[in-house]
Amino acid sequence: MGFEKKEYEFLREIALDSTNTGCFINGQWKATGSVVTSVNPSNNQTIAKVTEATIQDYEEGLQACSEAVKTWMAIPAPKRGEIVRQIGEALRSKLEHLGRLVSLEMGKILPEGIGEVQEIIDMCDYAVGLSRQLNGSIIPSERPNHMMFEVWNPLGIVGVITAFNFPCAVLGWNACIALVCGNCVVWKGAPTTPLITIAVTKLVAEVLEKNNLPGAIFTSFCGGAEIGQAISKDSRIPLVSFTGSSKVGLMVQRTVNERFGKCLLELSGNNAIIVMDDADIKLAVRSILFAAVGTAGQRCTSCRRLFLHESISQNVMDQLVGVYKQVKIGDSLEKGTLVGPLHTRASRENFEKGISIIKSQAWKILVGGSVIESEGNFVQPTIVEISQDAPVVKEELFGPVLYVIKFQTLEQAIEMNNSVSQGLSSSIFTSRPEAIFKWIGPLGSDCGIVNVNIPTNGAEIGGAFGGEKATGGGREAGSDSWKQYMRRSTCTINYGSELPLAQGINFG
Amino acid sequence: MGFEKKEYEFLREIALDSTNTGCFINGQWKATGSVVTSVNPSNNQTIAKVTEATIQDYEEGLQACSEAVKTWMAIPAPKRGEIVRQIGEALRSKLEHLGRLVSLEMGKILPEGIGEVQEIIDMCDYAVGLSRQLNGSIIPSERPNHMMFEVWNPLGIVGVITAFNFPCAVLGWNACIALVCGNCVVWKGAPTTPLITIAVTKLVAEVLEKNNLPGAIFTSFCGGAEIGQAISKDSRIPLVSFTGSSKVGLMVQRTVNERFGKCLLELSGNNAIIVMDDADIKLAVRSILFAAVGTAGQRCTSCRRLFLHESISQNVMDQLVGVYKQVKIGDSLEKGTLVGPLHTRASRENFEKGISIIKSQAWKILVGGSVIESEGNFVQPTIVEISQDAPVVKEELFGPVLYVIKFQTLEQAIEMNNSVSQGLSSSIFTSRPEAIFKWIGPLGSDCGIVNVNIPTNGAEIGGAFGGEKATGGGREAGSDSWKQYMRRSTCTINYGSELPLAQGINFG
Amino acid sequence: MGFEKKEYEFLREIALDSTNTGCFINGQWKATGSVVTSVNPSNNQTIAKVTEATIQDYEEGLQACSEAVKTWMAIPAPKRGEIVRQIGEALRSKLEHLGRLVSLEMGKILPEGIGEVQEIIDMCDYAVGLSRQLNGSIIPSERPNHMMFEVWNPLGIVGVITAFNFPCAVLGWNACIALVCGNCVVWKGAPTTPLITIAVTKLVAEVLEKNNLPGAIFTSFCGGAEIGQAISKDSRIPLVSFTGSSKVGLMVQRTVNERFGKCLLELSGNNAIIVMDDADIKLAVRSILFAAVGTAGQRCTSCRRLFLHESISQNVMDQLVGVYKQVKIGDSLEKGTLVGPLHTRASRENFEKGISIIKSQAWKILVGGSVIESEGNFVQPTIVEISQDAPVVKEELFGPVLYVIKFQTLEQAIEMNNSVSQGLSSSIFTSRPEAIFKWIGPLGSDCGIVNVNIPTNGAEIGGAFGGEKATGGGREAGSDSWKQYMRRSTCTINYGSELPLAQGINFG
Amino acid sequence: MGFEKKEYEFLREIALDSTNTGCFINGQWKATGSVVTSVNPSNNQTIAKVTEATIQDYEEGLQACSEAVKTWMAIPAPKRGEIVRQIGEALRSKLEHLGRLVSLEMGKILPEGIGEVQEIIDMCDYAVGLSRQLNGSIIPSERPNHMMFEVWNPLGIVGVITAFNFPCAVLGWNACIALVCGNCVVWKGAPTTPLITIAVTKLVAEVLEKNNLPGAIFTSFCGGAEIGQAISKDSRIPLVSFTGSSKVGLMVQRTVNERFGKCLLELSGNNAIIVMDDADIKLAVRSILFAAVGTAGQRCTSCRRLFLHESISQNVMDQLVGVYKQVKIGDSLEKGTLVGPLHTRASRENFEKGISIIKSQAWKILVGGSVIESEGNFVQPTIVEISQDAPVVKEELFGPVLYVIKFQTLEQAIEMNNSVSQGLSSSIFTSRPEAIFKWIGPLGSDCGIVNVNIPTNGAEIGGAFGGEKATGGGREAGSDSWKQYMRRSTCTINYGSELPLAQGINFG
Repeated sequence: MGFEKKEYEFLREIALDSTNTGCFINGQWKATGSVVTSVNPSNNQTIAKVTEATIQDYEEGLQACSEAVKTWMAIPAPKRGEIVRQIGEALRSKLEHLGRLVSLEMGKILPEGIGEVQEIIDMCDYAVGLSRQLNGSIIPSERPNHMMFEVWNPLGIVGVITAFNFPCAVLGWNACIALVCGNCVVWKGAPTTPLITIAVTKLVAEVLEKNNLPGAIFTSFCGGAEIGQAISKDSRIPLVSFTGSSKVGLMVQRTVNERFGKCLLELSGNNAIIVMDDADIKLAVRSILFAAVGTAGQRCTSCRRLFLHESISQNVMDQLVGVYKQVKIGDSLEKGTLVGPLHTRASRENFEKGISIIKSQAWKILVGGSVIESEGNFVQPTIVEISQDAPVVKEELFGPVLYVIKFQTLEQAIEMNNSVSQGLSSSIFTSRPEAIFKWIGPLGSDCGIVNVNIPTNGAEIGGAFGGEKATGGGREAGSDSWKQYMRRSTCTINYGSELPLAQGINFG
Repeated sequence: MGFEKKEYEFLREIALDSTNTGCFINGQWKATGSVVTSVNPSNNQTIAKVTEATIQDYEEGLQACSEAVKTWMAIPAPKRGEIVRQIGEALRSKLEHLGRLVSLEMGKILPEGIGEVQEIIDMCDYAVGLSRQLNGSIIPSERPNHMMFEVWNPLGIVGVITAFNFPCAVLGWNACIALVCGNCVVWKGAPTTPLITIAVTKLVAEVLEKNNLPGAIFTSFCGGAEIGQAISKDSRIPLVSFTGSSKVGLMVQRTVNERFGKCLLELSGNNAIIVMDDADIKLAVRSILFAAVGTAGQRCTSCRRLFLHESISQNVMDQLVGVYKQVKIGDSLEKGTLVGPLHTRASRENFEKGISIIKSQAWKILVGGSVIESEGNFVQPTIVEISQDAPVVKEELFGPVLYVIKFQTLEQAIEMNNSVSQGLSSSIFTSRPEAIFKWIGPLGSDCGIVNVNIPTNGAEIGGAFGGEKATGGGREAGSDSWKQYMRRSTCTINYGSELPLAQGINFG
Repeated sequence: MGFEKKEYEFLREIALDSTNTGCFINGQWKATGSVVTSVNPSNNQTIAKVTEATIQDYEEGLQACSEAVKTWMAIPAPKRGEIVRQIGEALRSKLEHLGRLVSLEMGKILPEGIGEVQEIIDMCDYAVGLSRQLNGSIIPSERPNHMMFEVWNPLGIVGVITAFNFPCAVLGWNACIALVCGNCVVWKGAPTTPLITIAVTKLVAEVLEKNNLPGAIFTSFCGGAEIGQAISKDSRIPLVSFTGSSKVGLMVQRTVNERFGKCLLELSGNNAIIVMDDADIKLAVRSILFAAVGTAGQRCTSCRRLFLHESISQNVMDQLVGVYKQVKIGDSLEKGTLVGPLHTRASRENFEKGISIIKSQAWKILVGGSVIESEGNFVQPTIVEISQDAPVVKEELFGPVLYVIKFQTLEQAIEMNNSVSQGLSSSIFTSRPEAIFKWIGPLGSDCGIVNVNIPTNGAEIGGAFGGEKATGGGREAGSDSWKQYMRRSTCTINYGSELPLAQGINFG
Repeated sequence: MGFEKKEYEFLREIALDSTNTGCFINGQWKATGSVVTSVNPSNNQTIAKVTEATIQDYEEGLQACSEAVKTWMAIPAPKRGEIVRQIGEALRSKLEHLGRLVSLEMGKILPEGIGEVQEIIDMCDYAVGLSRQLNGSIIPSERPNHMMFEVWNPLGIVGVITAFNFPCAVLGWNACIALVCGNCVVWKGAPTTPLITIAVTKLVAEVLEKNNLPGAIFTSFCGGAEIGQAISKDSRIPLVSFTGSSKVGLMVQRTVNERFGKCLLELSGNNAIIVMDDADIKLAVRSILFAAVGTAGQRCTSCRRLFLHESISQNVMDQLVGVYKQVKIGDSLEKGTLVGPLHTRASRENFEKGISIIKSQAWKILVGGSVIESEGNFVQPTIVEISQDAPVVKEELFGPVLYVIKFQTLEQAIEMNNSVSQGLSSSIFTSRPEAIFKWIGPLGSDCGIVNVNIPTNGAEIGGAFGGEKATGGGREAGSDSWKQYMRRSTCTINYGSELPLAQGINFG
C-alpha cells in the first residue's frame, strides 16, 4: 500500500508505511486495537494509519517486559551504555528523516523537528558516559570494622507517558537514563503522534535485536487513556514518568501513589519573562519571540506572561507588535515558516475559546487574536495587554498567546512571576549583577528553570529539566536526575565480630 | 505546683513543670486548647499536664512563621549553621535529663533514651558542617558566553509531624537539615509525648532568643490529628515530613499533593533478617535480640520477620528462646531493664489482638505470647514459627513479635524479604562475599536499608535513612537528603549579546 | 617567674609563662635546644622565652607519632570528628586570649588576631561535619559480578610547616582536615611565633589527654630550618604541607619528591585588583585599603598590584591617597589601630630596601614611602605609580606597598594580572555581567582565587584556598581539599567465580 | 614505495607507508630530523621508516599549538565533546587495523593489541558524557549578597609523553580528558612505536580537519629524549603527563616543577598478588598467569611478586609451573600465542642480566629462566622462589619474571606488599569479608590499585588509574581525574554594595 501523498514517501526510510502496527511487544510488532489515523496539522489530511494497543496487548507486553528486566539488570551498566550508544548512532543516521516526521506529524517547524531528534541523540551520548558514573558512595561509619555504602540499583520497569508537543525528546530524556540505569522501558506515546512512536521504537528494536537482547527491554504502545491508566495502576511498574497537564498529572500521581509507586511529573507551565529597564532590548525581543511563538506556543516552556518595566514597556511592545506582524505562518515543513499550525483542531478551538474570554473581559489585544481560515489548524500569534489580576493569566492557554503586564520594581516582578500555581520556567533580561543574583537566589524565581538573558524555553540536556509546584517537581535529563530511575540502598556492613551500636548505645 | 512524684523533679532542669503550655508561637509560649495528660507507660500514672493547640493557635503560629522565614532565608547558610551548632550545644548540656525524659514518657529504656537525644546532637554537629556544603553546580553549557548553574534555595516552611516512638530524634533529622537549608520549621510532636516536644522546643527557643532571631523560625505545637491535618492542607508549607503508618501517610500525601506540595514520608516497615548457613550465629542471635525486642519492638526498623537457613534454624531458634527467657522486662528507667513497656494501653491491646489471631491460626508460639498483668503496658517478647504465606506476616504488628520462617536458598530468602509491601530495613548474616554483594545488588533486598551482619535497626546519621514502596520513599539525615529540603533551580545565564539556541536550532 | 610586662599576664590564661618548653613530644612537653626570645613587633621587647627542638627531640617525637598513627587510623572517622569538635570548643573558650596573643606576637591588629583564631574554630566545626562525608565512590564495573570502589584512606603522618603571618590559622586549615582524615600531625610553627605554637598545642593536647588518646597524635615543635629540613627529608611523613616563599617552597618540594613524598604548597602571591570604569568606586577603595594595608601588607593574599581603568584612575588614586593619609598606624593591640608593625626588624629593612630601589628607578611615590622611627617595626603604607614593565612589579615585596598601573581594556588588565609567575589571588571591581563571567572564565584570571567586588584577601573556609604557578598549586580548607590528606585506592572486587577481563580481552 | 612484507600491507588502511613523516605540526605532516626504523619485535625486521622531529619542528609545533588553544578553549565543552565523539568513531572504524599494528610494533598479542585500542574508544565515549559534567560548585558564602563559586577552566596545553608498552591507550587516557577539558595536546610517543603514534594522530587530524578546526589542537611528535626534555622545560605547557620509569619520572618532575609547572606521573610498579589459604585457587592461578605473563610481563601493572599463604603455597606453585610450561610463546600476531616477544633486544638483554643476578644469588628458579634463541626478543616466562629480603625483589624487572614468597598471616603479607618503594597495583585472593575489607582499608595495601580476586592488571577506565609513592601519585582515566587537566578558581562574587568580611572581621 502506498502513502496518499508523494511527499510522505520519505517515511519508508524510517520503516513506516501507510498502515502500521502500533505496539512493540516482546520483541514483536503486533496490535489488536482500533485503527487510528495520523493527520498532518497543516492540512488535517491523513498521513498514515496505525493499529493501537488493547489491554490484552498491554498485558502481553508487560509480561514479557517483566521477564526481560531480569536479563537487562544483570548486564553491567557500561555494557548497557554501549547499547544506548548504538541507539544514538541509529538515530543519528536517520536524523533528517525523523526530524521531518516530527515536523509533519506534530506540526512544529522543521528546524525544531530536527532539533528535537538531536536532543535524543545528545541524551544517548550523555547516557553512555553516565553508564560509568552511576556512582554510589562509601560513607565513613562511626563503628569500627564497619563500612557504610550507598548503593544505587535499578528500579525494574519505568513507564513513560509522553505528550504530543515533544513526541520523542521526552522519551529520550527518560529512556536513555532509564536504560543505562538498568530499567526496562514501557512507552506510551501521544495518541496523535503514533508514527513518531513507531519510528523511534523501530530504531531501538533493531539495536536490541542486533545485540541478541530481548526486544521487551523496550516495550512500546500506541494508544490512549486506557493504556495510560493501565500503566498508572500496574504495580509491576515502580516508576511512572508522565508529561502532560497538571490536572491529569495529579490523577496519575494519586493512582500511582496508592499502589506505592513513584511518579516523575512534568506538568503545566505558565512561564514568564521579566524585562528590566537596563535590559538589552534587542536580545529581549528576539528571545520573547522565540519563547512565545516557537512551536506555536505549545511548549511546556513557552512564554505566556511578559512583565515589562514601565520605563521600557512601550518600546518593547512596539517592537514585538512589529515582529509579530512579519512572522511567517504556514506549513511546518515549508522553508521560512516560523509558526506552524496548532497540533489539532481541538487546540485551535481552545485558542478561539480563550480569545473570546479575553475579549469578553475587554482586555486589549495588541496584535493577532484570530484563527486563520484554512484546512490546517493555524492561528495568529497574539499579544494581550492585561492586568495581573485577570484570572486567565493564572492558567495555561496552550497556544501562542502572550499576556503583557507592566511593573515598577524587581520585587514586584518576582512576586508576579511566583504568583501562579505552576512553577516551570522563568526568565529575566537585565544587565545588573545584583538583579541576576537576586533572581536566582532565595527570594527570586520559584521555578525549576530560572534563566537570565535567554528565553524560557530551549533547555540544554546537561541540566535538570522540570518544575516546582503544580508543574510536578520531577527532574529529567542531566544533573543527578538519574537517581530518580534507581533505588537507593543504605548498606552497613559489619566485617568484624563485635556488635558496636550507633549513637554509642549499650544494649544488653 | 509540684510534680506528683519526686523522681519527676529532674524535669525542672529542662524547664518543665507539672502543668505546661504546649505551643511555641511567634516566639511565645501559649496554647488555648484542651488540657491533656502525659503518662508514664511503665505505670500509666500522670507525669504532667499540657495544654494543646487549637486551630487558632496554629494559624497565629503560621502567620508569624511566614514572616520569620523572610529573615531566616536571608541569613547566609554558614551563619544558620552557627545557630544549629548552638542548638546542639544546648542539647548536649541537657543530654542526661532529656534522655531520661524520653525514657520516662515514651517508655524506651534509658540507654536508648539517651541514644535518641545523642542522635539529635550528632545531627546538629553534622548540619553545621553541611551549612558550608549545600553546594550547587556549575554545569558546562553548550552555548558560548553562557553559564549553566544548578542553584539550591530554601523551600520556606517545612512541616514536621513526628511519631511517639522517636519523639525527638526524627525531629532532629528533619529540623537540623531544614534549618541550615534556610527553612523555618513547624513541628507537631506525637500527642502522647508532649513533654518531649516542649522540652526540646524550649532549648531551641533559648538559642534563637540569645541570637536575637525571631522565635517563629521554630514553631511547635502539641496537638492531635486536627493540627496534623492543618499542616497537610496548608499551602504555606511546601514540604511536609511525616513519620507514621503507611495508611495515614498515604492520606497525608494525597492531601499535600492536591495543593501541589511535597511530602517526605517515613512510613511502616516490616523488616526481615536473613541468617545464612555460614553466618556467625553468636553475632546473629545478639543482633536479632536487639532488633526484635529493642524499644519493645516499636521501632520502624524493628525486626519482625526472621528467615533462617534450614541447616541452622533449630540452633538459632533454641538460642533465641534461651535469651528471650532471660530478658529483663520492667520499668524503662530501671537499671538492667532490656524491655520496657509498650507506649500505650492501646498498643498493649493491639498486641493482644495480634497474638489471638496468631493463636487462632494455630501458629506455633516458641516463647512469649502474653501480656503481663501490671499497671504498665508490659507484654512478653514473642517468637512465632510461621509460614511465609500467613497474612499476618505481611503486616506490621507494632510490638515485640518476631515471625520465624525457614528457607533453603539465598534466592528464596531474598524473594521472601521483598514479598511485602513495606520496604524499610533488612539484614543478612553471612560470611560469603558473593552473598553479601548479591544482597546489596540489583537482585537483592529492595529495601532502603540493606545491612550485613548487623541488625535492621540502629542506623547512623551519615547515611540516608528511609525506605521504598509502602514505606514512602523519603530519605532523612545524611547523604544528599538535604536536597529534599531545598528547591532546585536550573539557571542558564547568557552574558554575551548573541542568542545561540540549544540543540543547534535556528529560529528566525 | 613573671612576665616582664603586666599586660602579658593574660598569657597565663592560655598556659604560657615567661619561659616555655617548645616541643610537644609523645604527649609530653620537653625541649633540649637553644632558648629563643619571642618579641613584640610593636616595640621589639621580649614577651617570653622558649626552648626550641633539637634533632634528637624531633626524632623522639616522630617515633612516638609513628606509633600513635596506628591507634588514630583505627578510630572511625566520625569519632575523630568528635575529637576535633572538642578541640574547637577548647579554642572557642579561649578565643579572646588567643586572638590577643596572635596580635601581640605576630603584630597584626586585634580584630585580625581574633579573626585568625575564629578561622581555626570555623575549620573545626567544618571538619566535624566532614568526618561523616569523607566519601569514597562505588563505580559501575563493566564486568559482571564485579564491584569497583574508590576508597579514601589516611596517609599516616602529615607534616605542617607554617609561616609567621598566619601563625595558627594555616595550622587550622591543615590539622583539622588532616586529623579527621585519620592522620597524625607534626607541626613546626614559625620560629618567631613560638608562643602561639605552644598555646594552640596545649589546647589540643588537653583534649587528647581527656579522651585518653596518645598525645603524639599531635606532635609540635618550636624550631627553625633544621626541623623544617628534617620534616622534608623524613620518609615517615608522606605529605608535607608548607607555607612560605616560592623559593623555599621549591626546595622543600624537591626534597620531598626525591623520597617519593607529596607536597601541599602555599607559596608567594603577587595579587592584583582591577578596577573597571563601571566599578562601584567607594566599594573598590574600601576594598583596596583592606587588601593593601591589612596585616600591614603581610598576607599572602595582600594586594600588591592595582590596575585602574584610565577613565577612573585619577579619582581612585586621589581617594586612596586620602584614606592612606588618615590610616592610624600603631601598636597592634591599641584600639583604633589599622596598621600594626611589620613582623620583624628584618621585614622593616626589607621594606626600606624595596623603597630605595623604587626611588632609584624614579617611580612616583604617591603616598608613604618611609619607615617610621620608633622601637617597633613600623613603616608607612605606600602607593607607587609605576609601569607594568618595571621588574619590581613581578616580585612579592612583603609589606604595605601598592603598585598602581593604568589600563584601557579588560583584556589588557587580565593580561597584566596573569603576567607574573605567582598565581594566588586576584580581584575585579565591575558591574557588568560580561566582565564578571569573562574574568572567572577560561580567558580570565589564572589565579587560584578570583574575586569580584571584594578584596584579594579574606577568604572563607568553605572554598578551597591556594594558588597556581609559583604559588605552588596546593589547596587547603574547604571543597575537596581533604582528598590531598588521603590516599585513594581504586578497588575492583570480583565476587563471582569467573574471570572476565576489561576491554573485552580474551586471554588464554 | 612498498612494504617489505606483504603482511604489512594492511598498514595502508590506516594511512601508513613504508616511509613516514613523524610530526603533525600546525595541521601539517612534516619532520626534519633523523630517519628511524620501526622493527617487529618478533623478528627484529624493519616494518617501516619514520622521520623524527628536530627541536625546530618542536618549536614550530608549539607556536601553532599556543595559538590554537585560544580557539579550542573558547568552544563550549559539550561541543568539544562532540569532536572527541567523532575521534572515537574514527578509531572504532579502524579498530582491527590499529590493534594489529599495536601487536605488530609493540609485540603484545593480538587480543591485547585490539583491547588497547578499544580502551581509547572507551575513553572517547566516556569523555563525551564528561564534557557536560565538568562541574564546578556553588558553595554557600557566609556573607550576605555574596556567592562563592568553584570554577574549573582549561589549563592550556597538556604535554603527553607515553611509553612503548601502551603506545596508544595511555595517550587515550590523557588526550580524551584533556581535550574535552579545553586543552590542546602535545604528544610524544615512544621512540620505538612511531607507527602507532602516526596512525592514531592521522585519525585525530582527519576529525579536526573535517570540523574546520586548527590541526594544532593535537600536535604530535615522533622523537626521543630531546623532545621529551623540550616538553619538560617548556613553560607554555602547564601540565606534563609522563609515563615511564620512576627514575626518569623524578627528573621530569624536577624540571617541570622548577618552571612552576605540574606533573601527572605514571611511573614504575612492583605489583604483588597475595593468595590466602581460603582463596579460590583455580581463579588465583588463572589470574596470576594473566598478571605475570600477559604482555610478556611488560605492563606497569604486571604482577612481579607473589605472596602465597604457606598452607596452599605448594599447590599454587605446582599449578603455576604446570601452566607456565604449556604457555605458547611466539609471534604476537599468530593465533594462540599467549606470550609474545619482549619489545626490544635491550629488554631481552635486561632480562638476561636480571636472571643472572638471581642465579648468582642461588635463588630457586621453578620454571623458565632463559632467553629463547631466535630472531625475535623472546624469553621464557619465569618463576623464582625467593626471600622477601632479596634486593632484586624491591626493583622492577620489566619482563615475565615472578618472585614467589611464602607468608603466614595477612598482616605479614600486607607488610611485604607495602615494603617496596613503588605503589601501583596489588591484589588479594580470599573469600573472607574481613580480609577483603582490611585489605582495602587504612591498614591494607598502600597502592593506588587494590584488587580482590582479580589480577593486578586489566583496569577499567571508569576508575582512576595510578599509584602512590615512587609510582608518582598521578591518576588518569575515570573518577575525578579530569580535575588534574583543569585549573580550579575559587571565586567570591559580591553583588551587594556592602563589604562584610569573612570570620566576622571588622576592618576600619
